[in-house]
Amino acid sequence: MPLDRKHLIGKEAMLLLLHNENQLPEELRKLGWKFCKGKVGSMDGQKVVAAVETAAKNQGIVKTGLYRETHALYHAIIEAVSGVTRGSNQIGTLLRTVGLQFSIVRGNPYQNKEEGEWIAVALYGTIGAPVKGLEHEAIGLGINHI
Amino acid sequence: MPLDRKHLIGKEAMLLLLHNENQLPEELRKLGWKFCKGKVGSMDGQKVVAAVETAAKNQGIVKTGLYRETHALYHAIIEAVSGVTRGSNQIGTLLRTVGLQFSIVRGNPYQNKEEGEWIAVALYGTIGAPVKGLEHEAIGLGINHI
Amino acid sequence: MPLDRKHLIGKEAMLLLLHNENQLPEELRKLGWKFCKGKVGSMDGQKVVAAVETAAKNQGIVKTGLYRETHALYHAIIEAVSGVTRGSNQIGTLLRTVGLQFSIVRGNPYQNKEEGEWIAVALYGTIGAPVKGLEHEAIGLGINHI
Amino acid sequence: MPLDRKHLIGKEAMLLLLHNENQLPEELRKLGWKFCKGKVGSMDGQKVVAAVETAAKNQGIVKTGLYRETHALYHAIIEAVSGVTRGSNQIGTLLRTVGLQFSIVRGNPYQNKEEGEWIAVALYGTIGAPVKGLEHEAIGLGINHI
Amino acid sequence: MPLDRKHLIGKEAMLLLLHNENQLPEELRKLGWKFCKGKVGSMDGQKVVAAVETAAKNQGIVKTGLYRETHALYHAIIEAVSGVTRGSNQIGTLLRTVGLQFSIVRGNPYQNKEEGEWIAVALYGTIGAPVKGLEHEAIGLGINHI
Amino acid sequence: MPLDRKHLIGKEAMLLLLHNENQLPEELRKLGWKFCKGKVGSMDGQKVVAAVETAAKNQGIVKTGLYRETHALYHAIIEAVSGVTRGSNQIGTLLRTVGLQFSIVRGNPYQNKEEGEWIAVALYGTIGAPVKGLEHEAIGLGINHI
Ligand SMILES: [Mg+2]
Ligand SMILES: [Mg+2]
Ligand SMILES: [Mg+2]
Ligand SMILES: [Mg+2]
Ligand SMILES: [Mg+2]
Ligand SMILES: [Mg+2]
Repeated sequence: MPLDRKHLIGKEAMLLLLHNENQLPEELRKLGWKFCKGKVGSMDGQKVVAAVETAAKNQGIVKTGLYRETHALYHAIIEAVSGVTRGSNQIGTLLRTVGLQFSIVRGNPYQNKEEGEWIAVALYGTIGAPVKGLEHEAIGLGINHI
Repeated sequence: MPLDRKHLIGKEAMLLLLHNENQLPEELRKLGWKFCKGKVGSMDGQKVVAAVETAAKNQGIVKTGLYRETHALYHAIIEAVSGVTRGSNQIGTLLRTVGLQFSIVRGNPYQNKEEGEWIAVALYGTIGAPVKGLEHEAIGLGINHI
Repeated sequence: MPLDRKHLIGKEAMLLLLHNENQLPEELRKLGWKFCKGKVGSMDGQKVVAAVETAAKNQGIVKTGLYRETHALYHAIIEAVSGVTRGSNQIGTLLRTVGLQFSIVRGNPYQNKEEGEWIAVALYGTIGAPVKGLEHEAIGLGINHI
Repeated sequence: MPLDRKHLIGKEAMLLLLHNENQLPEELRKLGWKFCKGKVGSMDGQKVVAAVETAAKNQGIVKTGLYRETHALYHAIIEAVSGVTRGSNQIGTLLRTVGLQFSIVRGNPYQNKEEGEWIAVALYGTIGAPVKGLEHEAIGLGINHI
Repeated sequence: MPLDRKHLIGKEAMLLLLHNENQLPEELRKLGWKFCKGKVGSMDGQKVVAAVETAAKNQGIVKTGLYRETHALYHAIIEAVSGVTRGSNQIGTLLRTVGLQFSIVRGNPYQNKEEGEWIAVALYGTIGAPVKGLEHEAIGLGINHI
Repeated sequence: MPLDRKHLIGKEAMLLLLHNENQLPEELRKLGWKFCKGKVGSMDGQKVVAAVETAAKNQGIVKTGLYRETHALYHAIIEAVSGVTRGSNQIGTLLRTVGLQFSIVRGNPYQNKEEGEWIAVALYGTIGAPVKGLEHEAIGLGINHI
């Protein structure tokens, strides 16, 4: 069974950033979907990964002691970083800096309950030279089963 | 001078897709910003590129005879495809299929008029196995000066 | 809690190929671990992916109707293909051909039961010019939570 | 002429790691095949490369003063790292750490003596978050003429 | 309209390096083409990017305050680095060092005046182990509209 | 011992293309260096690889029956293609076409005779949309021990 067009986890994650929203639509909250948001600016790829991981753990989106969940989150983060860096996953090593907002959403986007929970990591912000204003927007989205 | 926070070309391109909008905000229209939208479903990467290029030319977003503009558009498309494929730029060769909406927006997102025109290509839809329902969402954004 | 040194799912998957074994160690069978094996030779990346997916579904390693499981398997396959192709994920498009055995193993390699099931896809064989003998060995391993 | 099925250099290199062996099969020793093994744990890609290179030079697998041999080894290492990182060749820059055993084997795996010597670099171990236990197995194999 | 066979910007940029020339052909100077040259040796990718960017700005090849031009230059540099590193864009993180000359040329290589200005970044030198002599040549060329 | 500044194999290979030369400098001919040249235009990556391989074999640059030499050549070709495609190694799958000249040079570029023979593959031409004139120059160089 396909995606539920009212439960599009990637779209919701991205809209939290693009609309500067601080809550999910009521229907998704009723279904028990969770999310968190944060910001990170860095030339250092590992700081971007760490910021998203830390937020997800501190806000209870993933269980801290369970590698299974950390693994799902990690690959979703890297997929999102890949969109922002357009494939290279490199930031400071190529003299770029990023200023990003991120959101993490957890829920089941499918009509079939057995599909269980999925996680979406969205990134939106700017990438550019390490000089204020020499930058353009960038977006990334990673989705994984969790 | 930095990006104008009310003229975020990447955000506008993405919102045209996520909101299923068919026009840009009035302020941007007054400034002469142009856009077009379309859809493409394929296992074939070159068809995705061609669909976006063809729409951009047919809708007058880029000048057909000018390589300069085609070049700017092409790299923006490839950057967007990179987000959707999370770096590999491969679709059917890895047994995936995509069902994508795309938008192309042209305008100046910077406060400084001398920054001239830029182009954003946004992709939003699904990627997955070539079987209905075995898919998740994917997003890509490419931005270039034009 | 760490990996259980007697339940190393990647090692087991690789040894099934390197030893030409047709069963898992007794301890793992008692724990309910599942596996299957197969072969595929092709210049076509999508045929490699399809051969592994089809075997996994036909042998009951993953549930056919559940995208969650197909998704876990797919990413494990692509990670394994990445080892064989050393990053490019391209075969025939770069005039190479592969002759591969594959194994798929499903079980929990961690001491902690809550880590649940994981899947390993191992590939071992040759890659080279599409001429008999002009080839060397190649290996790939992909691991995912499922 | 094809690979000699009893002289599979990649398989031998991998089995040295998976079986925790400290010698090659007698037949290969009689043929003058050489090997060495070692371990490296790091978040730093260059330390992984350096550990394998240093071992190969110190153990006499490659000639120190000859770039030809260093070059052959280097590309074999990078191909193996590519399997472990599944294409990105990045470790700490993406907040991952590796704990790897490596083996290096040198010999002629082909039936034809004129194929001369080849080198295989095998990597086996874990990759994951820089936290004990948050990791899964990874494998890489690089093969080159030398 | 096609490239003008006497105004091949990439070829000119490369010949400035390979011939150790310090001026462009007279015809191109008359057309107002600009260029600069420099050298950089490093294990650090960002230093390579910075050296080229700094030279281009200091020599007036691109306008300092205009992101549009910095953006065009940046992507041309990264494309050139991609040739030198053969796709990975990584240097020291994989224990390599580079010793490079670079040239930057700005002009219109097309017959059609409306194609406007383009920029070529050429890199030529060596890449190898961080030990004198353990290196081979490498070349990269990036071209962008500006 | 370092590269011999008068025996730069990569530079010689590139100059054969940029100068449209049909012979190597006399000094290199006396040393027994070999080369060949050719052309290939295609959207199909495997045709580019095949054209270079076929020329090298037909012109006696590499021994046909020896995988060792084919392997050295293959990796040099792929490295050169990587420069032309700036990392992706994809042509038609991303709706690009190439028109390339290639040269292959074989000789020892080092001061030390023991470094033996090396091979350089140079590519120079255009890459762009499959429409005449919508293209820019591209360069690639691959170097390997043989
Ligand atoms: Mg996926
Ligand atoms: Mg950019
Ligand atoms: Mg993983
Ligand atoms: Mg090879
Ligand atoms: Mg281009
Ligand atoms: Mg090399």
